[in-house]
Amino acid sequence: MLSVRIPPLDEEAMRKARERQERLTKPKGSLGFLEEISVLIAGMTANERPRIEKKLVLTLAADHGVAEEGVSAYPREVTAQMVRNFLRGGAAINVLARHVGARHVVVDVGVAEDVHADADVAANFVVKKVAYGTRNFLKGPAMSREQAERAVKAGMEVLEEEFERSNGLDIVAVGDMGIANTTASSAVVAALTGAEPEDVTGRGTGISEERLRRKVEVVKQGIERNKPFEDALDVLAKVGGFEIGGIAGVILAAAARRVPVVIDGFIASAGALLAYKLNPHARNYMLAGHLSAERGHAFVLKHLNLRPILQLDMRLGEGTGAALAISIVEAACKILDEMHTFEEAGVSGALS
Amino acid sequence: MLSVRIPPLDEEAMRKARERQERLTKPKGSLGFLEEISVLIAGMTANERPRIEKKLVLTLAADHGVAEEGVSAYPREVTAQMVRNFLRGGAAINVLARHVGARHVVVDVGVAEDVHADADVAANFVVKKVAYGTRNFLKGPAMSREQAERAVKAGMEVLEEEFERSNGLDIVAVGDMGIANTTASSAVVAALTGAEPEDVTGRGTGISEERLRRKVEVVKQGIERNKPFEDALDVLAKVGGFEIGGIAGVILAAAARRVPVVIDGFIASAGALLAYKLNPHARNYMLAGHLSAERGHAFVLKHLNLRPILQLDMRLGEGTGAALAISIVEAACKILDEMHTFEEAGVSGALS
Repeated sequence: MLSVRIPPLDEEAMRKARERQERLTKPKGSLGFLEEISVLIAGMTANERPRIEKKLVLTLAADHGVAEEGVSAYPREVTAQMVRNFLRGGAAINVLARHVGARHVVVDVGVAEDVHADADVAANFVVKKVAYGTRNFLKGPAMSREQAERAVKAGMEVLEEEFERSNGLDIVAVGDMGIANTTASSAVVAALTGAEPEDVTGRGTGISEERLRRKVEVVKQGIERNKPFEDALDVLAKVGGFEIGGIAGVILAAAARRVPVVIDGFIASAGALLAYKLNPHARNYMLAGHLSAERGHAFVLKHLNLRPILQLDMRLGEGTGAALAISIVEAACKILDEMHTFEEAGVSGALS
Repeated sequence: MLSVRIPPLDEEAMRKARERQERLTKPKGSLGFLEEISVLIAGMTANERPRIEKKLVLTLAADHGVAEEGVSAYPREVTAQMVRNFLRGGAAINVLARHVGARHVVVDVGVAEDVHADADVAANFVVKKVAYGTRNFLKGPAMSREQAERAVKAGMEVLEEEFERSNGLDIVAVGDMGIANTTASSAVVAALTGAEPEDVTGRGTGISEERLRRKVEVVKQGIERNKPFEDALDVLAKVGGFEIGGIAGVILAAAARRVPVVIDGFIASAGALLAYKLNPHARNYMLAGHLSAERGHAFVLKHLNLRPILQLDMRLGEGTGAALAISIVEAACKILDEMHTFEEAGVSGALS
């Protein structure tokens, strides 16, 4: 069963955090979104002066049968190659996780090859493989309903295991790796929201205009071929991907544990949308790490009513935008905790 | 004399940085603005793989005669009180400078009181006081031309002294403190660009609609009373402020030393505009830390053709937006330096 109990935001902690923000030595509201972020984290963590110290970045990886339709600029084997790159520390997400002082864990939820991790990095690699890639959703459902459930559960288990391992977590950033997964994400977003495929299908890794037309067609046909959809899990099963389900699972389990989750770009947001459809309370524990350059991302964030922290035209995935945003969330919480109040500092307040 | 020799960006270092970005294990251009930032820093520092390690945050403080016109939400003594708060480590800029691992130095370029720094923080406080605040520019020029020159020089000297002290600097973030200094900045921006005062005058620390109307009137009258303006230095002298001149000086000296400068919000951008008018090459060494919520800031950034790194509705000043942006610039450079190439990682390139 995928049901989790997600507690409401702690209103009392939020009220106290808000009150403290107003007593700190700065004009009221002058730190803008940083102030709001600190209040949200207070509500999520039920702590009026939260600190972001135990940081985790998760990259969920899987392969997609629909890759054979020529929807990506890269061949399918790049998924496994990039997982190896993550384990050797050479990818963008490694650099950014180190930069923000976060532990980085790669999760194989359905990569088409078996990847071996050397002993020294074994703790950074979790294998919860549901299958060796999904099936091509133009030819039938991408996975069975039972596999969809296992994908979500895989994400939930990883979060739980990491929570145990670190004896609690102050924040988790979640991202993806999987050749052709923007195609699956577009199909998931269109199926879950009723959006037109062309409005939520973009260039992914950077495909040509011609490939983009094909990609939109693939998303349309995938939905046509597999509809009607029974529920959110059915959408995941028919047109989704294992890492998209896993990301939803991470978010649900984090929300149940009061751990703030920073969502990465378009694929992670498709996972977030799925988590929201599975349990609307999950939304309260989400922060949008950034606004991706990928078409459709702004639409999903609007649907979830999330304001992106960064807007840097990133469109890499892996969790990169979310990892980088941890630095901003951490700063927002330090502001709340470390600044002196007008009284402590002996600074005059505003004139009437 | 205020003339400095500012070297051009190093095109060769930029070309090499750009080439390396394209060989790193990510789709071409997929890190968006981060890639551009790394290439710019390569050009500024003449280093194809720059690192941001020696970081400095400067807060230049001064008082303004025009404060007596009731243009701010806070009384004038708050400038000196906040300088003391900076020295005790309790202000937002202290928290953010610590967060990004930067040294923080406060510069008194013209505070209306003498502030004493305790021995343990004396190295973080530099006194280059041109005068005890400017004169009210509704009654005549804010300062003499000689004082304007001294203000700019003060900023140049501080940068030079810090450069020596740290044996080089990889980045400097520059911000302000000074009750009523958004009023002076609006006047400087309007006078330097010909913008209408109402388009570049905002609520500063958060004034009422009524006070805002008065503030716009003060800016208009100040320009009316003091025009025509001979040159940029004359604008600074007649309607500017000591910290605005100092900020321009910091930028000019940093540019001469090939040190990237992160500009904070509206006041720092008025200083940047002044630096640009004094020497247009200075523009090449500027990064815009963030887009402030203050009216007029977007206009100045557009005029300087600078894209803001962060957009968090901050409007505090002190250097807060610029300091926080250091974390992003540092990450951009680490990406360029630390990521593995497709060849190193054994990852397949894009399909044709």
